Amino acid sequence: MARTVTFSAACTLDGYIARSDSSFDWILHGEESREVLGGFWKTIDTILMGRRTWDVAVRAGHGQGHAGIETCVFSRTLPPSERPGLRIVSEDVVAFTRRLKETHGNGIFLMGGGELARPLFEAGLVDEVGLNIHPLLLGSGIPLFHEMPRPIELERIDCVPFRNGCVYVRYAVRRKRA
Amino acid sequence: MARTVTFSAACTLDGYIARSDSSFDWILHGEESREVLGGFWKTIDTILMGRRTWDVAVRAGHGQGHAGIETCVFSRTLPPSERPGLRIVSEDVVAFTRRLKETHGNGIFLMGGGELARPLFEAGLVDEVGLNIHPLLLGSGIPLFHEMPRPIELERIDCVPFRNGCVYVRYAVRRKRA
Repeated sequence: MARTVTFSAACTLDGYIARSDSSFDWILHGEESREVLGGFWKTIDTILMGRRTWDVAVRAGHGQGHAGIETCVFSRTLPPSERPGLRIVSEDVVAFTRRLKETHGNGIFLMGGGELARPLFEAGLVDEVGLNIHPLLLGSGIPLFHEMPRPIELERIDCVPFRNGCVYVRYAVRRKRA
Repeated sequence: MARTVTFSAACTLDGYIARSDSSFDWILHGEESREVLGGFWKTIDTILMGRRTWDVAVRAGHGQGHAGIETCVFSRTLPPSERPGLRIVSEDVVAFTRRLKETHGNGIFLMGGGELARPLFEAGLVDEVGLNIHPLLLGSGIPLFHEMPRPIELERIDCVPFRNGCVYVRYAVRRKRA
């Protein structure tokens, strides 16, 4: 069975994942989100992210990565490298991810903004979308989704309203019949 | 008590209310949405919309309006007019809506895309947001929200997952303390 690629993020109701300066101090935490998102983290062993998201992660103190999880950072400017838990990948994200999905392993967490997600959606490599929608209109910032040439149909597989006002939704990407 | 202005729309998970050609054939109907949205329609007696949304409504055969509801269409190009159930308003939407909220009446439904909603959000005249989020990434189209200079905090007051895959969410706009 192919590994599941999940595009997952906390976002605002108007579809931003961060302010324009990359800050995300508006993200709410709580027992319920810890439980639901903690369950998701247990299903993954790989994180894919773009270089901008990586910069934000490093500034937030997550540059050491997460135990038992390999973080793959896609960058055309950073020198390719590999150390335990971290790979800097200069290869095309679509080719890399297609190959990755064919290897043995657990779930793959596609993290960050829509810039990295877009080519993967277009290539049909994203299997699920999980959003923690926050009760906020940010007004401007870094968008969750970028424009794509074709619609993608989803099937809702989960919807959990949290007491803190967030709504966690999870969808499976519907595959076109051959 | 002031009248409630509700910005309400069907939208896709990536925040569009229609395709670029204004079509909305992707909107799902069903018993549950009829019930929830029917309940909302009973609370309103006025609809505010921009001229583009009006054009779409006319093309969809809703140019006769809705029984017992006054539709106010904001346009700087159509000649101002008033007939039972329909007003073409050339006045600024903020000034008009501020005055409207001070008159006696029921709820006010702010319909359509974010272009008309934006100045009303910025002026603090929108009280609620109700979205029927569809299980679809449209990729491109007419956006639900436009950029705004300041964040707006919301309080979730309803969240109903429909069997057809939609999620209906309703929020109250939080007022800043004076």
